[in-house]
Amino acid sequence: MFDADRVAVIGASETEGSIGRAIMDNLLEDFDGTVIPINPNADSVLGVECYAEIDDAGDVDLAVVAVPARIAVDEVREAAEAGVRNVVVISAGFSETGSEGAARERDLRQIADEYGLNLVGPNCLGILSTPSGLNATFGPTNALPGTLSFLSQSGAFVTAVLDWANDQDIGFKDVVSLGNKAVLNETDFVQTWGDDPDTDVIIGYLESIEDGRAFIDRARAVTQSTPIVLVKSGRTEAGAQAASSHTGAIAGSDAAYDAGLAQAGVLRVDTVQELFDFARALSGQPLPSTRSVGIVSNAGGPGVMTTDAVGDSDLELASFSEPTIDALQESLPDEANVYNPVDVIGDADLERFRRALDIVLDDPGVGAAVVLSAPTAILAYDRLAEMIVDRQAAHGKPIVTCLMGGERTATAEDALRDAGIPNYFDPARAVNSLDALADYDAIRNRTYQEPTTFDVDRDAGAAILQSAAEREDNRMGVEAMELLDAYDIPTPEGTIVETPEAAVEVAEGLGEPVVMKIVSPDILHKSDIGGVKVGVKLADVGDAFEDLVTRARNYQPDATLLGIQVQEQVDLEAGTETIVGMNRDPQFGPLLMFGLGGIFVEILEDTTFRVAPVSEPEAAEMTREIESAPLLQGARGREPVDIDGVVETILRVSQLVTDFPAILELDINPLVALPDRVTAIDVRLTVDTDKL
Amino acid sequence: MFDADRVAVIGASETEGSIGRAIMDNLLEDFDGTVIPINPNADSVLGVECYAEIDDAGDVDLAVVAVPARIAVDEVREAAEAGVRNVVVISAGFSETGSEGAARERDLRQIADEYGLNLVGPNCLGILSTPSGLNATFGPTNALPGTLSFLSQSGAFVTAVLDWANDQDIGFKDVVSLGNKAVLNETDFVQTWGDDPDTDVIIGYLESIEDGRAFIDRARAVTQSTPIVLVKSGRTEAGAQAASSHTGAIAGSDAAYDAGLAQAGVLRVDTVQELFDFARALSGQPLPSTRSVGIVSNAGGPGVMTTDAVGDSDLELASFSEPTIDALQESLPDEANVYNPVDVIGDADLERFRRALDIVLDDPGVGAAVVLSAPTAILAYDRLAEMIVDRQAAHGKPIVTCLMGGERTATAEDALRDAGIPNYFDPARAVNSLDALADYDAIRNRTYQEPTTFDVDRDAGAAILQSAAEREDNRMGVEAMELLDAYDIPTPEGTIVETPEAAVEVAEGLGEPVVMKIVSPDILHKSDIGGVKVGVKLADVGDAFEDLVTRARNYQPDATLLGIQVQEQVDLEAGTETIVGMNRDPQFGPLLMFGLGGIFVEILEDTTFRVAPVSEPEAAEMTREIESAPLLQGARGREPVDIDGVVETILRVSQLVTDFPAILELDINPLVALPDRVTAIDVRLTVDTDKL
Repeated sequence: MFDADRVAVIGASETEGSIGRAIMDNLLEDFDGTVIPINPNADSVLGVECYAEIDDAGDVDLAVVAVPARIAVDEVREAAEAGVRNVVVISAGFSETGSEGAARERDLRQIADEYGLNLVGPNCLGILSTPSGLNATFGPTNALPGTLSFLSQSGAFVTAVLDWANDQDIGFKDVVSLGNKAVLNETDFVQTWGDDPDTDVIIGYLESIEDGRAFIDRARAVTQSTPIVLVKSGRTEAGAQAASSHTGAIAGSDAAYDAGLAQAGVLRVDTVQELFDFARALSGQPLPSTRSVGIVSNAGGPGVMTTDAVGDSDLELASFSEPTIDALQESLPDEANVYNPVDVIGDADLERFRRALDIVLDDPGVGAAVVLSAPTAILAYDRLAEMIVDRQAAHGKPIVTCLMGGERTATAEDALRDAGIPNYFDPARAVNSLDALADYDAIRNRTYQEPTTFDVDRDAGAAILQSAAEREDNRMGVEAMELLDAYDIPTPEGTIVETPEAAVEVAEGLGEPVVMKIVSPDILHKSDIGGVKVGVKLADVGDAFEDLVTRARNYQPDATLLGIQVQEQVDLEAGTETIVGMNRDPQFGPLLMFGLGGIFVEILEDTTFRVAPVSEPEAAEMTREIESAPLLQGARGREPVDIDGVVETILRVSQLVTDFPAILELDINPLVALPDRVTAIDVRLTVDTDKL
Repeated sequence: MFDADRVAVIGASETEGSIGRAIMDNLLEDFDGTVIPINPNADSVLGVECYAEIDDAGDVDLAVVAVPARIAVDEVREAAEAGVRNVVVISAGFSETGSEGAARERDLRQIADEYGLNLVGPNCLGILSTPSGLNATFGPTNALPGTLSFLSQSGAFVTAVLDWANDQDIGFKDVVSLGNKAVLNETDFVQTWGDDPDTDVIIGYLESIEDGRAFIDRARAVTQSTPIVLVKSGRTEAGAQAASSHTGAIAGSDAAYDAGLAQAGVLRVDTVQELFDFARALSGQPLPSTRSVGIVSNAGGPGVMTTDAVGDSDLELASFSEPTIDALQESLPDEANVYNPVDVIGDADLERFRRALDIVLDDPGVGAAVVLSAPTAILAYDRLAEMIVDRQAAHGKPIVTCLMGGERTATAEDALRDAGIPNYFDPARAVNSLDALADYDAIRNRTYQEPTTFDVDRDAGAAILQSAAEREDNRMGVEAMELLDAYDIPTPEGTIVETPEAAVEVAEGLGEPVVMKIVSPDILHKSDIGGVKVGVKLADVGDAFEDLVTRARNYQPDATLLGIQVQEQVDLEAGTETIVGMNRDPQFGPLLMFGLGGIFVEILEDTTFRVAPVSEPEAAEMTREIESAPLLQGARGREPVDIDGVVETILRVSQLVTDFPAILELDINPLVALPDRVTAIDVRLTVDTDKL
């Protein structure tokens, strides 16, 4: 599509202000290939021979459709029949406008399926590819050539970005306005650009991801070699509502997007500024070998600000080696600071600056450098920039700069930019860019592990879920503990019994005290009717059985009573209550949640998420990244809990919810983590019985 | 100082590259007043008559000292003797260079005291005031006139900012480089500019505050009418270390700065970008009457991003009134979105944009607006800007804009800037600026309350602290509970007794069970030696007494044993453990801390701080702003605790630590908050016995 040589414009026009005219103008301006206007009412458009039908136009690599929606579908079919395989539908009036438009969009999708079309849009600004000068958009601005490829779910944002980027000397390889994503979506372009040697960084603005799982799988592979930086808007509740009314997409939870994008290795940013700051650093600079940053400055104050910014980031201030400090001491005046941040002081000339920077970059512990300068009489920014470009190339370590000032920085900034070195007035932005490099380095270096799978009794699990369908109840409580058993997720020892005698026998085996519970699919809030007894002594087990049965009967005479569960009583005080949960996200599917029980989840919202299925390292990360993780690890003189057991439970739940798409929601709450084992005390789940 | 008419330059020179030359050049360029060079070795400097001594120079309003440090002190004395009252000491070589320099700086301070000098520096860039064109700095750049006054603890940062600000059309009223702050410091300038009708906003870069309490008191008054925006660097551990090595100031805790600056009504920002974004909005825009924001956009995507930014901020998306929605519906095409964010869609002309903006600003619930536009063929940014300026003036509500693009925004941006309306490419920055306006509005509207004082037994408190001095031990434990009694901070009922019989009698009065503890200043970790017994039944009180005494004797035969404390046993399960603490900060003095006990403070670091003394609203805020506050308020079916009791305890502790500067640290841990009362179960404190 981006390499197209012969491009047809269906709806080409000379009418000022029309979209067909704008596209023709854009294509005729720079395109190396052939532009073919299609319009039954014209013999030529802007001096180019025009065809009535695409069938007459010979070979066409790409058709751009800019006719009204009501005839656009037919035009696409004709193009497909004429053998065109790449189509960009600019026309609006599809799913964004109501049911009639949605029907048209279904037709489009069907034609695309039938003919195997690569179709962008509808309702989009078009596409752009700078190597051939292809500008198949109706926007007012062409892109400068460059190595960023850019996808956007907002056409207006493309227009705004191109105009701004030209001013900032930011260039692009390919650009696509995704529109309604009837056929091609973000996943397709991520894959295409991942294979494109001329794309250094993929950036994008998205309001939704069509198929979260597919996106994760593709993007994970791509991000091993090509960084992806995305704004996914609709992060906040109000934003999600606005995005949903804008695109008509059902909003998935932002937690799912956050988890999914992280698992895919995507650098997710919140603001437009970060999007381009990160893109600029990633396209111009090598990756750092460590997270330790050296700062070289001729000004104390900005040096301190930069140090703060490093403290705010995931980077760290490099501790220089002895030889580095000795060398700095030898090369700098007494008043200079030879510890990080290095202050070469205000009267530093170019040579002193260069020596200090060389020494700092020579330190093997230093992964990257920030060079700062305030304006001084002795130092010309142009020469400073030249020196920095030279030293960056010599050392091969990433550098960002703050040559602070106004007009005097202009040509220096140009020189730095040409060498891929971003220059900012604000040290925080400079450091943030280095942070992005280090984050991407970590992504590139991670080794993907397949999700762990265990040998489980899947058939037993299926049977238990089936019982819900038979009862016509989509909620399951304690009766689903057997589902956990089927997947070898540890539960308290115990059995469901039907007689007091059996209850006593089971209790004898477990050792007193025991827990006894009503088991009935019809009684959900068992505790409320006294349907759960804890700390039952052996002598009281028989009476407890009768009492529970009576309570169940009194509460709801027609309730199905499956029996009474007699269970070992786990000493909650000796353990830490955790929660392993899942809910199914419309875009990403099963979203696992982990957190500590009670107030930690409910009040402090100290939780973490991953899209299932997860691998062992991912599950282990979940147990480490919550704020209350120290409580699992044995803070304040506690005994550490069986974290391996927690991790294994997460993995088994991951497998369970992946095996059964019918499970809509599941919560093991609490999963008690003891020093030597874990035990699921209670489970609730919701089942989509139609999917069984 | 800033109004000086006759300015002497001591050390004026014609030597290229010298500081005396740079200052002369700067002064001669724009200054409306008289410049008087002082140099015994010249008859004239740059064509201006030069005097050998300041005494010969007639009336001088301001002396700028740019001679080497070793003679600078004498020059300042001569100037003072000649009647000069305002002095700026540019010269370096004072406390920043070691003990000799520090001695010089003490001399300077002494002279300033003796003669009542207003002295800036030493080791600074100088001062600047645009109304008279006074540029008494040796920097390369003069400032544009404006309404920001700017103080900076880094001279290099002043140089960088002026150069950059000129490029950005940001102007200043006064600028001061504070240098070593031997005499005048941030508090003095904040006060001066607070009284200056030509200063709209005070901005600053600080690495330390000399006297935190004085700063709070002055700045609190100033911020009632003039906003203050500050970067206080050294926020992070590494940054604090860097700042400390840069300025030589002892680093106070950042929590103290954060609390103190907030109490002073200062808007503290982290980055240079925010410093100027906030300053620009505050100097150009009215304050919003509500925190609700209306968004008017011709582009859906950027509208969603802006909505996200509102969600990230402390602002909220306005819910339009029915009449607003009706009016928008009537005035906009069907495809438009009439709910917030309003999307006037891409084909909107100026008139449609204007109508929508008018309707939104007419809604009484809308406090401020963000206007967004992507480049479109139909809309010229210059005319859009003109319209926005006009409507802003008509409605008197704050507006920020994102006219997105590059060069095409240039003249529109100038027009907006002239009207005080900031324009950003990134919606997040635009929204952040509105947030600053709303924050400042809240500061301006807050009513300062005097710290609450209670009728307490201060003499009894003094006597208890004195006992620590007599014991030559600066740590106090349970024996300090009486200090709490003296300040009517509730403690468990109980008495220290010396016989088993007395113990039984007290226990009978309290009701069983009771808590019994060894009371000895020499035994700090009583629990470790079994020196605390809880749940003691009445029948066991006598034996427990004997046992505790034996344990104390066995542990340390020569320990002073003050007796055994017999106490009511507070039911911890029925309450919530909180901590009220204090430590003394080198800059701000007594820093109060509040948080929930145990893991909340120790692992989750869920704490809040205020500089004492605090008022009732401040103490109440502390109990509300911790993350775990819902636990006090009765989350998850708990009974709410006696929050008034917690607040009163904070206030009484505030009074106690303010009354006794000898208390270096104090922790009431736990203060158990029950539904109907609070009780301090234990206290520890450290006393500076020299200050008693």
